[in-house]
Amino acid sequence: MSYAIGIDLGGTNLKGALVHREEGLLQQDSIPTEADKGPDHVLDRLASLSRMLIQEAPNGVAGVGMGAPGAINWERTTVSHPPNLPGWKVVNVSDRLREKLDMDLPVVVGNDANVAGLGSAHYSVGRPHPSFIMVTLGTGVGGAIIYQNSIFRGSTGGAAEIGHMTIDYEGPHDRHSIAGAIEGYLGREFLSHHARYQLMAQTDSLVHDMTGEDLEGLTPRTLYEAATEGDEPARKVLAWAGHKLGCALASAVNLLDIRTIVVGGGVSGAGDFILEPARQTLPQYVTVGLRDDLQILRETRGNDVGMLGAAHLIFEHRSD
Amino acid sequence: MSYAIGIDLGGTNLKGALVHREEGLLQQDSIPTEADKGPDHVLDRLASLSRMLIQEAPNGVAGVGMGAPGAINWERTTVSHPPNLPGWKVVNVSDRLREKLDMDLPVVVGNDANVAGLGSAHYSVGRPHPSFIMVTLGTGVGGAIIYQNSIFRGSTGGAAEIGHMTIDYEGPHDRHSIAGAIEGYLGREFLSHHARYQLMAQTDSLVHDMTGEDLEGLTPRTLYEAATEGDEPARKVLAWAGHKLGCALASAVNLLDIRTIVVGGGVSGAGDFILEPARQTLPQYVTVGLRDDLQILRETRGNDVGMLGAAHLIFEHRSD
Repeated sequence: MSYAIGIDLGGTNLKGALVHREEGLLQQDSIPTEADKGPDHVLDRLASLSRMLIQEAPNGVAGVGMGAPGAINWERTTVSHPPNLPGWKVVNVSDRLREKLDMDLPVVVGNDANVAGLGSAHYSVGRPHPSFIMVTLGTGVGGAIIYQNSIFRGSTGGAAEIGHMTIDYEGPHDRHSIAGAIEGYLGREFLSHHARYQLMAQTDSLVHDMTGEDLEGLTPRTLYEAATEGDEPARKVLAWAGHKLGCALASAVNLLDIRTIVVGGGVSGAGDFILEPARQTLPQYVTVGLRDDLQILRETRGNDVGMLGAAHLIFEHRSD
Repeated sequence: MSYAIGIDLGGTNLKGALVHREEGLLQQDSIPTEADKGPDHVLDRLASLSRMLIQEAPNGVAGVGMGAPGAINWERTTVSHPPNLPGWKVVNVSDRLREKLDMDLPVVVGNDANVAGLGSAHYSVGRPHPSFIMVTLGTGVGGAIIYQNSIFRGSTGGAAEIGHMTIDYEGPHDRHSIAGAIEGYLGREFLSHHARYQLMAQTDSLVHDMTGEDLEGLTPRTLYEAATEGDEPARKVLAWAGHKLGCALASAVNLLDIRTIVVGGGVSGAGDFILEPARQTLPQYVTVGLRDDLQILRETRGNDVGMLGAAHLIFEHRSD
């Protein structure tokens, strides 16, 4: 069967797509998650989104794949402690969604960053590269290791936590209280906070015109917009973040000997203002024998890769 | 065929063993490398060491496996720029040793740290663990990733350069000029230098009685011996190194979701003086979801794992 549903389980919206194995994304839809109403309500909404999309498939679908935040078990059935879904703890999304759908369909769950990597590998920028490292810059910093066209999962399914790799053992703490973790520089809150601190006194920076008093409301997007208009102070902050990203990616390259990196996620909108400094830093921290053919690419399909990769979990599952 | 030769190509000595697939190391020998006389001379010596050991096998051997410093190509035939073998550049050890031996035998080469990991996986401390990270502390800091009982090789065979992962983007430079790389703290020269600097003024430390003027001749072994006799200043330096090791290992765990670590190599003689601080640091830098079941073990078979793993390259090769 050549069709599957791919769903991106986000804290704000549930995004779903009908995906054809070869042709990719055919149709998509999005509904609010209403996460505050708890897991059972969200599962009901996941079921209705899925049903809506399944009806669009000419001869039914092979299954429902989903990318979710938080830790996923090895069997790809449960989601544990997703940071943006209050009250979830450990939920067997696979069983419970299958019950609600009441159809004989596999439901397979993957970590959202892993699934984005898989989508890029099969339908987007990652396609020409059998192996690459995916980094997603958003609220947090997520990662995926695509090795020989599949997700490298580690011992329990939790691999590729690039965001928590340290580049300064005495550096600032990230959400997991790890000193110098890359998320502590590039996570949305951290980067916004650092920018406010850096730019507070630089009153000639455009960001002062674009935000409230005391730079309230400054986000990575503000920095990107100011940088695009030529604002040097904003460019400097993004370059600072890019430098840190380059250091962390270099450690990953040294460990994996995977030399292509694909950067996606919301903050990657800042594009070359972050990625160009990262490209300059990267080889300086990579061991001599692994310095050739390094490249940092930008994921161009945005959130679509999440839904595409989620659907691909089903296509892989079927060919096991 | 159940026998193979395993060779450790070192800068000072060539060590070789006759290895039985199930029973492990049966017999071993060692001759000086005489590296200063160039590659052809070393290859002659490798041939005579191999012949000597082959004669001991009851019905011949399946091949000759070798662990070598430097980069190894994907096909496991050439050694590139081994740091401790002058004049080597790129040498096809596989072809040239086979010619010199004039026998119809495969000769397979692996990176020395990778091969040590493989030896531990099949014949030593790593055996109960399908996946683990091996770190070898010696002149440099080497690494191996054993994933599901095999070497994880990356895209070109160069994976597991743990020694060059950075833990401080503004830290001291290692041999490849990477700032804050773990080798810049734990490599033999770096650690000795740091210890001399730290202990110079601490004239009550035992290391002053054990070394020459200005702490000349101080090595990691001096530190270990002083620490064993209760010397606090020596213990502090080793603990400092162990802390750095813990940080780097945590980054590796975050990326790989492999939670067992095996530490080998000469400097691992310093044992718990380094490993205990590493054990304390490790979970502080590992992301919440991967903190269970972390363990740092010490390789107990010393250099034997290198020869055993080298021979195992042949057993694997035969079952391809």
